[in-house]
Amino acid sequence: MTSAPGQLPYTLPPELLIDTDVARRLIGEFIRGHLRQTGFERVVLGLSGGVDSALVAYLVAEAIGAGKLLCVLLPYRTSAAESAADAQEVVQLVGCPSRTIEITAIVDGYFETALGGESAAGQPDRGRVGNFAARARMAVLYDQSVTWRGLVAGTGNKTEALLGYTTIYGDNASAFNPIGDLYKSQVRQLAADMGVPAAILRKAPSADLWPGQTDEGELGLSYAEMDRLLYWMVDRRRTDGQLVEMGFAQALISRVQHLAAASEYKRQTPPVAKLTTRTPGVDYLYPRRRPV
Amino acid sequence: MTSAPGQLPYTLPPELLIDTDVARRLIGEFIRGHLRQTGFERVVLGLSGGVDSALVAYLVAEAIGAGKLLCVLLPYRTSAAESAADAQEVVQLVGCPSRTIEITAIVDGYFETALGGESAAGQPDRGRVGNFAARARMAVLYDQSVTWRGLVAGTGNKTEALLGYTTIYGDNASAFNPIGDLYKSQVRQLAADMGVPAAILRKAPSADLWPGQTDEGELGLSYAEMDRLLYWMVDRRRTDGQLVEMGFAQALISRVQHLAAASEYKRQTPPVAKLTTRTPGVDYLYPRRRPV
Repeated sequence: MTSAPGQLPYTLPPELLIDTDVARRLIGEFIRGHLRQTGFERVVLGLSGGVDSALVAYLVAEAIGAGKLLCVLLPYRTSAAESAADAQEVVQLVGCPSRTIEITAIVDGYFETALGGESAAGQPDRGRVGNFAARARMAVLYDQSVTWRGLVAGTGNKTEALLGYTTIYGDNASAFNPIGDLYKSQVRQLAADMGVPAAILRKAPSADLWPGQTDEGELGLSYAEMDRLLYWMVDRRRTDGQLVEMGFAQALISRVQHLAAASEYKRQTPPVAKLTTRTPGVDYLYPRRRPV
Repeated sequence: MTSAPGQLPYTLPPELLIDTDVARRLIGEFIRGHLRQTGFERVVLGLSGGVDSALVAYLVAEAIGAGKLLCVLLPYRTSAAESAADAQEVVQLVGCPSRTIEITAIVDGYFETALGGESAAGQPDRGRVGNFAARARMAVLYDQSVTWRGLVAGTGNKTEALLGYTTIYGDNASAFNPIGDLYKSQVRQLAADMGVPAAILRKAPSADLWPGQTDEGELGLSYAEMDRLLYWMVDRRRTDGQLVEMGFAQALISRVQHLAAASEYKRQTPPVAKLTTRTPGVDYLYPRRRPV
């Protein structure tokens, strides 16, 4: 099953096409295995209306049953109404419980109330609002995970992880991530295969922070091109010279290498001043063990 | 300099005493080295009024100068007034810039406004409030790090990291941690050595979530005893049998082993379903590189 459905309005790079049956099986085993290992039966995730979180909802429901998945919609006051509608459609199709929790009071509670004069003087920078909103969503999901008695599933993909197009301790924070090793193009292929609605597959990926924002607009490149470059650079370890021969511009290659290096810190635990022989988070590291 | 000042009202286990000169030098080099490596000149941290964050403030000020450190006080409406007063005294003594940002609007914005009916029915569980508050503080510190152009210093110690007595993506989240390899007893020794005020050294450690809360009350054991056990168990790798011979109760040993295993997930990045040869956060891992 490596053929991409005809309904997709974008090119899937042929070298990135995956065997979706294998991916679904491996990811399903990963989800069930991680829950078993940690002693949980349920999962909670933040559903944005985009393709990444929609795919994770489908994968979790397939792996453990829709009744054990709680989808939380976390709109901010500037979020598009279309996003909530798309998320609601996923909830309907998956058949899982859901709830909507506005993060507006949390985010504005900081920028308007807590900061007081500083932001009253002008609009706070929208990048700062976006990062704060991402962390507010994480905090809400972790609180919801307590009452739901479930693990928080991550919904970040490999493309954004490698480019650092994430908020550390925000959208990149989770208990486990079923799709973190799939490029965006592969997320799209798998989502199409699983029946994620065409409206979600078709719309331009966006962090939905302000009207008209799109990932590709901010990155200055299509996901298809970015994913091809990352694949040949990271997975297939091609040299700069080989990448140039394949048609990638040296300036783009350098920029992507810079982004990957500059975002290393988002993919690791924080460094600790090492003073003894065994340091938590540095070299006192073990496989997750189920508490006995 | 391994002698503990006489002013300390608690026992420092002799086997845990450190050479404070060496520790100050190594931690200073760690702070300067990490800033150089990441291209930053300044640091921001959350100052609670407790000994851990006070010590980090002293260490950072010694390493890079007080003018490059921003201390942020982050009280919630139930925080003790004494905590803010103690934090202010640290700011005075260290001589660094500071600001106070109440997190009440953020936290109550969630539990009272966003959750609506659910928490109106009763007081939200104070453990949930405490975890949400810890994540709100992290989000505020990361936002402040943008305008201050500094890295967020972690202030968690080795004892709480090993016991999992932390909030994941809350107080255990940072850009780098100068004291994460020091047990609480060693934090106290080093803090006394550096001149942290006696009032801070003397008071019972507390997460300051509700009046009368103390860490030792919640853990059911003194830090001195807990640190001794962790030291012989983790650093010196003694067997259960040997630990029992040293006088530790088997029930306590088992409980601490359980806590260390159950909190493994707080000391690692989340697992990712592995599908390819190089997976961000799993095996695509490199030393932090200064962006070129």
